[in-house]
This record gives sequence, C-alpha cells and structure tokens, in this order.
Amino acid sequence: MTRTLRVAATSPEIRLGEVAGNLQRIRSALQDAAARDAQLIVVPELATSGYVFADRAEAAESSLARDHPGWDDLASALPPGVVAVVGYAERDGDQVYNTAAVLTRGFRVGDYRKAHLWGSEATLFEPGTTAGAVFDTPVGRLGVAICYDNEFPEVPRRLALAGADVLALPVNWPLLPRPAGEHPPETIQAMAAARSSRLATVIADRLGAERGVPWTGGTAVIDEDGWVAALPDDAGAAVATLTLRTSGDKSLPPSNDLFGDRRPDLY
Amino acid sequence: MTRTLRVAATSPEIRLGEVAGNLQRIRSALQDAAARDAQLIVVPELATSGYVFADRAEAAESSLARDHPGWDDLASALPPGVVAVVGYAERDGDQVYNTAAVLTRGFRVGDYRKAHLWGSEATLFEPGTTAGAVFDTPVGRLGVAICYDNEFPEVPRRLALAGADVLALPVNWPLLPRPAGEHPPETIQAMAAARSSRLATVIADRLGAERGVPWTGGTAVIDEDGWVAALPDDAGAAVATLTLRTSGDKSLPPSNDLFGDRRPDLY
Repeated sequence: MTRTLRVAATSPEIRLGEVAGNLQRIRSALQDAAARDAQLIVVPELATSGYVFADRAEAAESSLARDHPGWDDLASALPPGVVAVVGYAERDGDQVYNTAAVLTRGFRVGDYRKAHLWGSEATLFEPGTTAGAVFDTPVGRLGVAICYDNEFPEVPRRLALAGADVLALPVNWPLLPRPAGEHPPETIQAMAAARSSRLATVIADRLGAERGVPWTGGTAVIDEDGWVAALPDDAGAAVATLTLRTSGDKSLPPSNDLFGDRRPDLY
Repeated sequence: MTRTLRVAATSPEIRLGEVAGNLQRIRSALQDAAARDAQLIVVPELATSGYVFADRAEAAESSLARDHPGWDDLASALPPGVVAVVGYAERDGDQVYNTAAVLTRGFRVGDYRKAHLWGSEATLFEPGTTAGAVFDTPVGRLGVAICYDNEFPEVPRRLALAGADVLALPVNWPLLPRPAGEHPPETIQAMAAARSSRLATVIADRLGAERGVPWTGGTAVIDEDGWVAALPDDAGAAVATLTLRTSGDKSLPPSNDLFGDRRPDLY
C-alpha cells in the first residue's frame, strides 16, 4: 500500500532584517508552490529574518512572537489542507529561539525549536528542549528538524521511530568545499538517514549569500529510499510527487524490516 | 594533532565452499596489501567461505573454528604491527556465526559476530550479542561491524562513541539499482556515518557474482570527513593513507563539537 504526497521545498529571496519584505516573499513562494499542487511546502530556516546576525540584539530585533499577525497572513495563502513549515526567529518574552512554525489555513499546528545550535547560534538563541518534533497534520505525521539537528543521526532516527511519515528540514547551509561530483555533505547525511529509516526528507536551503556567507543551495527533495527526487528549478523550488508506503511500514521483503531488525537492547 | 594510517580494503577472488583456496587467496591479498605498506587490511564478509549458501548445512561445512590452523598461516603473512580483519563463517560447537577475525602476527586480537542478519542469514547463522565491537590494536582503537550492521545508524555512532578511531567494515553487498552517478546506497550510509562521527571507514566488498547474485563491488576507503579516499584499483584493492585527528577529537572549530553538541538527554 502506498500513497502519494506532493511536496515543495522553496527558497524565496531572504534579506537580513527585512521582516515585512521577507514575510511577503515567503507568502508569494507559498502561493506559487500551492499553485503547483504542493500539499507540503517547506521554506528555509530563519526565513523571516535572515541568518547572519551580528549579535543577539539584532536577532531579537528580527524576531516574531507566535501571535504576530503575519502568521495569519501567511496561512491565508495556503489552500485548505496544505501544510507549510517556515523557519523564523521566535521571540518568547526575553528569549529568542531558532524555530520552525507548522502552519495550515485556519490553525497553527505547532512550533519546533532547534535543539542543536551551530556556530555562533548559541550566543543568539536558547536551545530547544526536544530533538526534532513530530506533528499530526492534514498531510500525515510530519517530522520537523532544523539544519544542524539532522547531522545528528539520532534525530531523524528518533522522529521516524516516533512515526514521522516525512521530514521537513529548513536549513541554512554555509557552502563547504566538497569533491567534484559529490552532493553537499549535509545532503548525503539526509539521504542516508532517509534510507535508514524510510523517511522522505524535504530540505529548504538558502540561495546566494548573506553578509559574505555563501549558501550551499542545497534545496532538495529526498525520497523515502534515500534518492534525490527533485532539485531546484529556475524558480528556486524543488517540487516532487513522493510515493510513500503505508505509515510505519518499514518492511524489506522477503526477510527484513528496517525497524524490526534493530537490536535496541544492544545500543 | 593528526596521525596517518595507511589502510587497504581488498577483494580477493572468493569461491563458494572452497575454503582452502580462499584462505590461500586471502593470504596472498594480505601480502600484496602489506607490500604496499598498509597497516590495516580489510577483506570481505565471509571471505573464507563465500556467501550464497543453499542452507545451514552448507554454511556449517565451510565454517572454521577460531583454533583452525589456517588462522596462524594467515597471520604469518602480516608484518609485525599490521592488523587484518577477515570475514569468515565461524563454527562454535553446533552454532555457526557470521564473524570477522581481527588478526595480527603473533596474536589474535579478537572476533566480532554480526548482530544484524540480512536476508536468509537468520536461517544460517546465530546473531551476535554486541552491535559492532571495538578492539585495541597496534593501529589504534578499531571498530568492526559487518555489512547490514552499518545500515543501522546506531552502530557506527555507538562504535565512535566507544572510542573507535577507524571502522573496518567487511561486506557482501548484492548489487541494487541506483540512479546514474550515485554511489551505492550503502556507501552513502557509510559516508554519512563517517562524517557524523568523524569515523574513517574501510569497506571490503566482493567483486563479480556468486550463484547468480551480482555484487556491488563497493570496496572503498572513506575518510573521517566522509569522502571517498580510494576506490579499487585494477588489482581490486582500495589503498589510501588516511589522516586521522587525535583519538577522540571531534571538535569543529571555532564553536562546535560533533560529540559535545549531542543532546543525549533528548534521544
């Protein structure tokens, strides 16, 4: 038994600190993806704010509370039943988090706060208190992790074991050197995690550069066998119709099962 | 601080059930690799016996006890201080295991019995009772896992956390379809695991086919950053001089650490 899920990872232009403009461009990207029949749409980490903050004050200045009116405006761009995952700098009292909002038209499914902080993020953000999260959504059980989270193999594994059917992964990957012909290293990690746990992964990365940091442009859709199903088109969006096996089906006929063959007593 | 380690993964011709001939060809492959200054040499899973057994009786017939005289003969091919990891069908009383021997000249370092059995292996072998193993050897702390073991991300992670400096991975990978230009899927998993845990991995796979099962030919050396450092040459051996950081150094300057950034309280 399988089902299909049409997904889009999209990379709208994001300008550091220009929150209103970023919200507008994200809204437009959501509309474009929805017009291409995407049921799940992922935009990058910290898409509303940009990433390369000089300090905590600058990050706080571009942060949004969960009750900011911009969220309803974004959600209103989504057809009923479509789910969007949007990275943002979240303000909660005096604290700032690197968070992903899970949105649908009419209600906010939830928010996930990044648990593994990279580079100088630890000076800007409070860490989250779960390692990724799984949400029940109109498109199924959705895992959410943010960027560096997914470089810890425990995270996608944990989310798949918790029943995630697909993983939304907003990222900001600074460009790293890599051998010719190879995928970005973080893509390889996502491909491996997808195959290990039969967990399709929708990666939304940045394009271009910000304050001298060039981005990898690693936006991609990884299918549940771990292969690249889509890379960005000219519009910067990777769109694919994924075939997903029944939720929780990890069987490898005739004799194996990706989860049943685990030896949790030995780990 | 770094050190270098010269490693070889080698794929001698292996004929199903021809144990004496296989031992001879393995010995010759060890000599060849040692002549190229390899300090660590890995040969495939079940190299002494072949893989595609019809039934348990056939597997038992090609099995070797740990005190079989063939082991001393193999070890005598190794220069002092060189370590070899050799997959074999192990006989222990009435039981048969899919095991890797860790050999040096003069003493047997230890044996690891495969814990995750693939395909019909569960009808042939008893499963091991550890998920990979780490041995102190003349070339450092050596992780050993066998084939399907490494497709469980818990295994290489666990071995690296236990202090393995490098992973020896004897495999028999049946050829799977894959998109043009991609590494074999199991290679991608090994590359990802290597990068996640800074764990160089030496993979010895089969060449050709056995009883109609074509092999992937995935013999490779993966460096500790997760990149392919060597593929097989015309002689079927992948040989590379790896640069290894100080044992246990998982730092990612200036702010990160692959292990220090883990959130084990959340997994």
